[in-house]
Order: sequence, then C-alpha cells, then structure tokens
Amino acid sequence: MTYSMSPEALIADLEQIRATAPLVHNITNYVVMEVTANALLAIGASPVMAHSVQEVEEMTTIAGSLVLNIGTLSPDWVEAMTLAAAKALETGTPVVMDPVGCGATAYRTEVSRALLNMNCCQVVRGNASEVAALAGERIQTKGVDSTAETTAVEHLGKALAAQRTLTAVLSGAIDVVTDGTAVVRIANGHPMMSRITGMGCTATALIGAFLAVNPNPFAASVHAMILLGLAGELAAQGVEGPGSFRVAILDELYNIKPQDILSGWKAEIVGG
Amino acid sequence: MTYSMSPEALIADLEQIRATAPLVHNITNYVVMEVTANALLAIGASPVMAHSVQEVEEMTTIAGSLVLNIGTLSPDWVEAMTLAAAKALETGTPVVMDPVGCGATAYRTEVSRALLNMNCCQVVRGNASEVAALAGERIQTKGVDSTAETTAVEHLGKALAAQRTLTAVLSGAIDVVTDGTAVVRIANGHPMMSRITGMGCTATALIGAFLAVNPNPFAASVHAMILLGLAGELAAQGVEGPGSFRVAILDELYNIKPQDILSGWKAEIVGG
Amino acid sequence: MTYSMSPEALIADLEQIRATAPLVHNITNYVVMEVTANALLAIGASPVMAHSVQEVEEMTTIAGSLVLNIGTLSPDWVEAMTLAAAKALETGTPVVMDPVGCGATAYRTEVSRALLNMNCCQVVRGNASEVAALAGERIQTKGVDSTAETTAVEHLGKALAAQRTLTAVLSGAIDVVTDGTAVVRIANGHPMMSRITGMGCTATALIGAFLAVNPNPFAASVHAMILLGLAGELAAQGVEGPGSFRVAILDELYNIKPQDILSGWKAEIVGG
Repeated sequence: MTYSMSPEALIADLEQIRATAPLVHNITNYVVMEVTANALLAIGASPVMAHSVQEVEEMTTIAGSLVLNIGTLSPDWVEAMTLAAAKALETGTPVVMDPVGCGATAYRTEVSRALLNMNCCQVVRGNASEVAALAGERIQTKGVDSTAETTAVEHLGKALAAQRTLTAVLSGAIDVVTDGTAVVRIANGHPMMSRITGMGCTATALIGAFLAVNPNPFAASVHAMILLGLAGELAAQGVEGPGSFRVAILDELYNIKPQDILSGWKAEIVGG
Repeated sequence: MTYSMSPEALIADLEQIRATAPLVHNITNYVVMEVTANALLAIGASPVMAHSVQEVEEMTTIAGSLVLNIGTLSPDWVEAMTLAAAKALETGTPVVMDPVGCGATAYRTEVSRALLNMNCCQVVRGNASEVAALAGERIQTKGVDSTAETTAVEHLGKALAAQRTLTAVLSGAIDVVTDGTAVVRIANGHPMMSRITGMGCTATALIGAFLAVNPNPFAASVHAMILLGLAGELAAQGVEGPGSFRVAILDELYNIKPQDILSGWKAEIVGG
Repeated sequence: MTYSMSPEALIADLEQIRATAPLVHNITNYVVMEVTANALLAIGASPVMAHSVQEVEEMTTIAGSLVLNIGTLSPDWVEAMTLAAAKALETGTPVVMDPVGCGATAYRTEVSRALLNMNCCQVVRGNASEVAALAGERIQTKGVDSTAETTAVEHLGKALAAQRTLTAVLSGAIDVVTDGTAVVRIANGHPMMSRITGMGCTATALIGAFLAVNPNPFAASVHAMILLGLAGELAAQGVEGPGSFRVAILDELYNIKPQDILSGWKAEIVGG
C-alpha cells in the first residue's frame, strides 16, 4: 500500500470533505449518535444514522462510507450491520468498524469477529483491549474502557492488520495506526478526551469521513486520528472541565486551520 | 382557516407555553432525543419520549400534542407511530410529522406517506427534498440533508398542503409555511443551524409545543419557526463554532423576550 | 442499618470512585444515555451501556453496580432488565432503579412494580409522583414530570422503603432519602436542574456509582444526591440558561473539591 501520510495530505483531505460533504452512513450506538453526528458535521461531512434492515442496504449504496459501531448492539442491529456490510462489499463502499467492548462480553467479541470475517472492513479502530481481543488475545479490560497501553499491544494490531489486510487503529495516549507493515504513532490528543463519552467512537466516525475522500485507508486513518487529537489539544486550552471540553472540541473541529495542522502534527513512522 | 400570525400572537403563545407547560409526546429519532427534549424544556414545555406499542396510546391521550419523527425508524417504531396517530385522531390531539430522509430511501418515503394517508397530521415539516418527496416529486437529496432551496419547491409544499388539508413547513435558509393558500416566508435563522444535528427536528418539536396551545396549525407553525430562527440568530452572536452554538441556542430559547420577538420578526406573507 | 452520612464520608466515597473508577452498568433510556455517561465519567466512574439479553448478565457480573431506568422502555428492554436484575441478585451486585413516568402509563407502573417485586433494588429514586405511584398511591402526574412536592409524599417513600427493605429517594426542590426509619432532607440543588433533561436520571446513575464503593445504600444515596445538588448550585453561578448550565454541571462534577462539600452540605436528619 502506498504511504501518503503528511500534513499537506491531511489538509487536502479536510478541504475535500469540506467541499464535498460526503455522506457517512453510521450504524452506531445510542450513546454517541449525537456527538458523532455533530463531529461529522463540524468537519464538513454529512452524517446519516439508519439501522433498520428495511433500508440499510439502500442507504449504504448512496453513502461515501459506512461506519459500524457495536457499542449498544442487539440482534436486530447486528442483522442490519451484516446486511449493510455485504452491500458495501458489493458496491466497494469503504467500511470502518468499531468493536466497542470487544473482550468485555462474549457477545461483543463474537459479533465483532463475525463482522471482521466478512472481509468488509478497510479499517478497524478500538482501544488496546478491544483490538487485542479482536486479535484473539485476552488482556485485562473493564467494560468499554481499556486498561492497557496501545504501545504494549502494537504487535497485536500489526498482526491483525497483516492477517486481515486492513488498517488497525489502536487509540489511547499514543494512537497507533498500522497496515501490518508500516506503523505510525501519533502523540496528538489530550487526557481530557477520555473523560467524555464517545471520543473513541468519534475517531471511528471521522475515519469514516476520511475514507469517503481518500482511497488509502491507512492515510485516511492517520489523518482522522491526528485531526481529532489536534482538536482535543486545542480544545483543552482554557476549559473548565469535561462539559466545556465537549463543547470546545466541536468548535475546534469546525475551526481547525491548515496552520494548526502544519504546526501541531505529532506523528512518527516507526516501522514499515 | 383564520390567519392569526403576528409577533404579539407568538408572544402570547410563548407565554401560554411557559405558563401551562404542555405535555408534548415525542416518538422521535435517537439522534435528537436529548436536544429536542432540552429545547422543549427551554421554552417551557414538558417533553415526554415514549415509543412502545404498550403505552403510546395512553401517553398520547394525556398529551397536548404528538410529534412523529421518522429519523431512525424501524418496524416496531412505525407500528407505535401508527397506533399513536390513530389515537390522536380519536382524541383530537394535534400531530406534527417530520419525514426525515423522505426520498432518501424507499422505506422512509413509504412510511411518511403512510402516516400522511392516515390524515392525522395538522403539520408536516421537512427540508426541501423531504417535502418534495412527500409531495411525490423526486428531487436531488443526500441522506437527510436537502440539496434544494425551499423557495424552489414552494409550489410543491403548497400543493401538498392543499391536497392534504394541512400546514406544510419547508425549512431552510428561508423557511416556508403554507396551508395551501397563504404562504409565509421566514428569513429568521442562521447558517450555523445546519452545522449541528437536530435543528430541523427541533423545529418540528417546537411546532408540537405551539400546537398544544394554539388551535391554528398555520399560526402555530409560523410562530415556532420564527422563535427557533430568532434563537439561532441570537445564539450565533459571538460563538466560536457549532459546539458553543448548540449551547447558546438552548440558552436563547430559554431567555428570549417579547422585545426580541417584536424587533427580530422577519416573516412576510407572499400568498393567500 | 448503620447511619454513616457525613461530608467526610461523601468525600471518602468520591475519592474511592476517582481512585477505582468502578464500572457502572446502565440499562437506561435513550434520552439520557449520553448525559448520564458523561456525569459518571466526570465523577471518575466508568459507565457502560448494554441492553441486549445476549450480554446483560455477563456485563452485570463484571460491574460494580447496576442502574435500571425505564424512561423509554419496551418489552425487549424489560426482558433485559429482568435478566440483569436476577443476575445482580445472584452476584450481590447493588441495584438502583429509576421508575421514570411510573403512574403516567399503566405499562410504566406495571414494569417498575415488577422490578420492585424481584427484591433486587437497594435503592429506588424517582420524583414525588413516581415514588407515590410505586407505593400504590395515585397522585397527579404529567408525563415524566412531577406535580407534587417531595415533602408532601415523604410518608409514602418511607412506607415503600420500610415495606420493601430498600432506600427510597424522592428528588425535587427538597430531596428526601429514607430507609423507612431515618429520613434525610437535602436542600442542595438549583431550580435550573429541572430545565434540562436527564437530571433525575443522572441522580440515579450517580447513586449507582456510590453504591459501587459504599455498601450502605442509604449513605450512598445521600452522598450522590448531595454531590449532584452541590454541582447544580455551583454550575448555576453565572450561567446564561439551560444550555450553559448543562455544560457547567459536568464541569462542576469533575472539579468539585472536599472544601465545596464541607461548606455546601445542606442535609438534615429529620427522622429515624
């Protein structure tokens, strides 16, 4: 896979999103629907949430990308995700999957592996615990929060990516993006991001937006993670706590400028 | 239908809402539940969300109005909407319907037309694409966002309203309200309103609150659209982006004063 | 039951929550999922939302407490709550139940009574109408909002608590917490808390967090109610309306300090 990550390439992707407002079809969890829709709108994308088996295939057909997030899954939603994923395979629509809580319950592990086995995902994004569980390793988890560092399980993400021919994104204090060969570590971000719900899911949704404009899933993932991390850093300046941080991060996603990206970029290639 | 739109009539409606806190029963989509509940609370109404077939009829019976919004529909929700709509017809409870994404998928088009065919709706509110699709015209749409100007499809809204004996509201840069004869165009509002999710759905919910205190659906619709547009204008002053705008619009809906309405009113009658 | 309510004990509980981040399993309503997750994160707890019968038992097993909230109930969710409650009984996981809208529809009354009859709840929290309806008294209600003062139905909460061997929490201008013998009245709080959705549900969720670190349900309930009331008071200082209040209360929950608790404590024991 050609490597094309750069501040300039991120700026170009963002301009493309702002100019074309790609439709991002989300089948996602109840908790984060609003914040992820607002984050997508803030960067210029056009989110749609639709989860009924009656319409997910049609919606995927008109969408620029598909986001599958199992955060509050149930059998009817899984059926819808499966139908949408199959349609995406057929139409060539890029898919990003968020295995929320994979490893925390057997049901989440099974469903996220079943989606993986459809070979529909260009990108999988989770925290260290989730990606490790998806890769078949059992590490300590607590509900939907990870208890491990991403860098400690980087090899698992790399193996998963290589085995499945996809891009694995492990988010945490250091975000790790890997296609199984190249590894990028991203230091952008802020601890306050873990004190509001939905930041991981927002990362996944933003990857969806970048996938809609960039045919390279690895670059799209790196760009989305850096953008969100930068917005988090900028948002954290001068806020009082998580309530005002949640407001500020949407403002920053909306306002972020090429210069912010050029000067704030904190990604390094460590393999590949 | 008697025409009774005026700043004074809007002020009177708002005072009535604040004084009586009418119960507005919402069967609405997951994405906007919280923001519409908060908007209804901000203007003084009392929102309730209930969607189970086990209780929607009973809830509609005690409510002052019913809001039907198909934004994240599925068969069980459609069944509940149908039951609630039938009960509203029986009890004379006013109904406003939001055909979110009508035209984007066949399922949404079918469900919103089926609800329309029940003749239960006093008001239908959508963007240009949605109202056009509901009226049977196919215009370009993208997911749940419109790609047409409201004024370009005003005639479709007018025809829909005349044919169905209801008030059609087309929201956009210019909001159009018509009962099939009279047409009111409203210039209140702000572009930032399209950069957060749920503003259209919030308009629909506020129409629900006004329907609960004003027996004239046309006036209730005009009043709700102007109130929200004005709040949007006031909110946009000095905000940093969509995150802070979302906060400010709830504050403005709560704080809006008669003088703001008298001085900010930007509606004109262009037909009827 | 030993009485152990005190500012110092609240401070100790909060420190324990911040230090251990207990996992709180919420089966709750769609409207408040995000704000309750954010409130739990703000005080340092680790929220998880999971509602599928396929996984609720497993999730309850790994959780420190279980929150059952019937705000947007439907049969599949009730089945999941029942399974989770049975598992909690088996594992000794503490449970708090929020009978949202009990008394407003027969379905809500039946479901909340059925959960009560499982004898799984250490705590029940509702407004005056809801607790009265749960206790078998029919008082005026309007949707999910109470129309009665908590102090007027204190005897019903006391009777309910005594009969069911649980702690009843009636929230309103004065919060009442009773185990059937002792009664604590809490004057902390602010009227603005009733102008945003989900503050009652947030109180219930915070009780869940305190139950995970404090084996005394009565003290846990008093502590949670005082903490939220204090955060509300602090948040109300200088805000413009409910939008900014909603932001500020999350900030305050995150920032609240021992000194705030020592100086702001407004609870008195009036019985027991």
